[in-house]
Amino acid sequence: MEPIRVGLLGLGVVGGGTFNVLARNAEEIARRAGRHIVVTKVSARDLVKAKSRVGDAAQVVADPFEIVRDPSIDIVVELIGGDGLARELVLEAIAHGKHVVTANKALLAKHGNEIFALASEKGVMVMFEAAVAGGIPIIKAIREGLTANQIEWVAGIINGTTNFILSEMRARGLPFADVLAEAQKLGYAEADPTFDVEGVDAAHKLTLLSAIAFGVPVQFDKAYIEGISSLSQTDISYAEELGYRIKLLGVTKARPDGIELRVHPTLIPAKRLLANVEGAMNAVLVQGDAVGATLYYGKGAGEEPTASAVVADLVDVTRLHTADPEHRVPHLAFQPQSMSDKPILPIEAVTTSYYLRLTVDDVPGVLAEITRILADASISIGSMIQKPREGSTQADIIFLTHEAIERNVNAAIARIEALTTVQSKVTRLRLENLA
Amino acid sequence: MEPIRVGLLGLGVVGGGTFNVLARNAEEIARRAGRHIVVTKVSARDLVKAKSRVGDAAQVVADPFEIVRDPSIDIVVELIGGDGLARELVLEAIAHGKHVVTANKALLAKHGNEIFALASEKGVMVMFEAAVAGGIPIIKAIREGLTANQIEWVAGIINGTTNFILSEMRARGLPFADVLAEAQKLGYAEADPTFDVEGVDAAHKLTLLSAIAFGVPVQFDKAYIEGISSLSQTDISYAEELGYRIKLLGVTKARPDGIELRVHPTLIPAKRLLANVEGAMNAVLVQGDAVGATLYYGKGAGEEPTASAVVADLVDVTRLHTADPEHRVPHLAFQPQSMSDKPILPIEAVTTSYYLRLTVDDVPGVLAEITRILADASISIGSMIQKPREGSTQADIIFLTHEAIERNVNAAIARIEALTTVQSKVTRLRLENLA
Repeated sequence: MEPIRVGLLGLGVVGGGTFNVLARNAEEIARRAGRHIVVTKVSARDLVKAKSRVGDAAQVVADPFEIVRDPSIDIVVELIGGDGLARELVLEAIAHGKHVVTANKALLAKHGNEIFALASEKGVMVMFEAAVAGGIPIIKAIREGLTANQIEWVAGIINGTTNFILSEMRARGLPFADVLAEAQKLGYAEADPTFDVEGVDAAHKLTLLSAIAFGVPVQFDKAYIEGISSLSQTDISYAEELGYRIKLLGVTKARPDGIELRVHPTLIPAKRLLANVEGAMNAVLVQGDAVGATLYYGKGAGEEPTASAVVADLVDVTRLHTADPEHRVPHLAFQPQSMSDKPILPIEAVTTSYYLRLTVDDVPGVLAEITRILADASISIGSMIQKPREGSTQADIIFLTHEAIERNVNAAIARIEALTTVQSKVTRLRLENLA
Repeated sequence: MEPIRVGLLGLGVVGGGTFNVLARNAEEIARRAGRHIVVTKVSARDLVKAKSRVGDAAQVVADPFEIVRDPSIDIVVELIGGDGLARELVLEAIAHGKHVVTANKALLAKHGNEIFALASEKGVMVMFEAAVAGGIPIIKAIREGLTANQIEWVAGIINGTTNFILSEMRARGLPFADVLAEAQKLGYAEADPTFDVEGVDAAHKLTLLSAIAFGVPVQFDKAYIEGISSLSQTDISYAEELGYRIKLLGVTKARPDGIELRVHPTLIPAKRLLANVEGAMNAVLVQGDAVGATLYYGKGAGEEPTASAVVADLVDVTRLHTADPEHRVPHLAFQPQSMSDKPILPIEAVTTSYYLRLTVDDVPGVLAEITRILADASISIGSMIQKPREGSTQADIIFLTHEAIERNVNAAIARIEALTTVQSKVTRLRLENLA
């Protein structure tokens, strides 16, 4: 059979990795796909550098639009990132009847509905395994492997930078700023780390996971996002003492009245596999009503892990492009006419457990006042520790609550902070038992 | 669109689970698959019981051949087990142009080549996600999710019974026989547990994983199989002391000269996620050249977890049945004309690390003699402990070796056991660092 012809937009880290993997494993891939998958055209900003990398294997062009309009190209791989030019290119490629493979989570989290609608109209596929958790085939697992299930929730460590930072903070007892500086030196964090450490990147990925788990449109603007930059060593230590680890989790849950979609630092029991995912690794836990919990673990970023997912998508497109479009795997896992309009719940309506830490005057009656406030707000306490602060007449109190509604917790926190015996703001972290 | 019509052979644990999941999640599944998937006919031995379970939803018949020959059935689901009648039924279903979904690892490990060949000839699919690791979509991950990679090795905990027994032996310090009796009482082990505890079930599954990882025919008869029934508490404790846990692993590795295919108790570093897979859970670790290591974890057995995999296959068949057969996912991941003829290596040619335990007279020069024998056989020592045996003049010595070829280790063991100062057989376990 004729080779499938691929146009590659961008020859950066992932683009270069994709080119390498397709070249190195060409025979292995053809043995699986039944035909060769060949990059025939590449667009890059630095033509000289790109030519020296690609050699004679493919044509290098400066204008990416030349690729998306080229009638000889079967599949366009978009790896330039961002959601301006990338959006234009992807829409143009689809308009020209080309299948698209992309690793661009920001693009799909923001413009996925528009892109998938056009793709359905044109009868082409837009594949994005590489957009979430790098080389881990988590999109495939949820979209195809767990189709028997009503998915109940998904919880994942889907940002390697923050997981590296949290792992180091815990292992070495260092504050956030020091570990971040080191992560930047090692190349695990960007010069401007906001996107990663404030949870935006994780929220892009979670938005996609939520859409394919529950059959809702992508709604990045409704995601609740809280990063790790204000997380203190104190809370990591207290969590440890209580048998928990703190991870930046993306959590999405189906509730009767809507869908939770939230990224925040989260206490999880130390014995869970997810709690033992260290360094820059990623892992996603998916709870289905038939299968129970399944977990997927691997490298969430990097040249070849991400390329692994891009190439898997290329093989899938190669396989499925002769199937009639109605029988292909739908972009968001559910048929476009069968999407759900369940709303995304605001964070105040979320139900989870909580870690609450505060400093109080060590005088009789304080604990009675606080626990009365919690009880009034229907918040029941799972465990508690109280520690005198050295050299003072104050004490730290830490509560772990059972499940409660966030708006009740907010109200209780406001009342607690108004007590004259309470000498600090209440530090509030969310807690998931994941079982 | 018309519903897809399914004939179910067998209404036991997995058959019943499949029927339930298809009924309960009918709408969710149709929203994904684009059409309904309906069981129209069921064969069962106990007609009365089957009818009371199925109600009016499907016709219940005594003769399974009536289903595989029924022109109205699109897909046959084989869940009766064994490799006699099941083989006949599957071949007959294929001959009648039906797609087949099965959870039958024994059948495919032994007769897969014959079955897949006939299926390719007839242009139908034989799907078997449920045959390995229950609800974990590991077949899909390897066959489709990791197609970019040259798979280097696969190592998995793929038998829940033995993992439950080993977890309990370690946690509670009890001998094998006691824990087995308890597992039988709890329903985790069969009355005749041979199949599980001697590693046969794991070897069936590993044979399938090896075939799809490396593109070789199924060759169950070449698998090396060693169970856990002779594993002693002593070795579990020493392993723990050295920072390792013992798991029954299925390991398959591509070597330049062939493929390793082996099931045996294995020491793995305690900090690995795989070492922390407890109870009846399953997990599979796959090493690819591009993606690195990825891990897949979940329930490996049980009514609904296994049904989850069966139904996912039904959805896949529904999706792919309009694709031209040359573009479908090949049964063993590689195109039939592109299979590899790499041989399965005999256990003597395997390369791995070893745990060796022996009892010696506590006299000068013993250690020098033994280490000389190991060095002569090109076996280098990674670590060692020596413990005096209480109330005797003997000592236990435990070596952990670096990688060595098994035939060299066998030769060294023979020489060591012949020493007059060595007072025991050498207990030999294999060790995998999994990195």
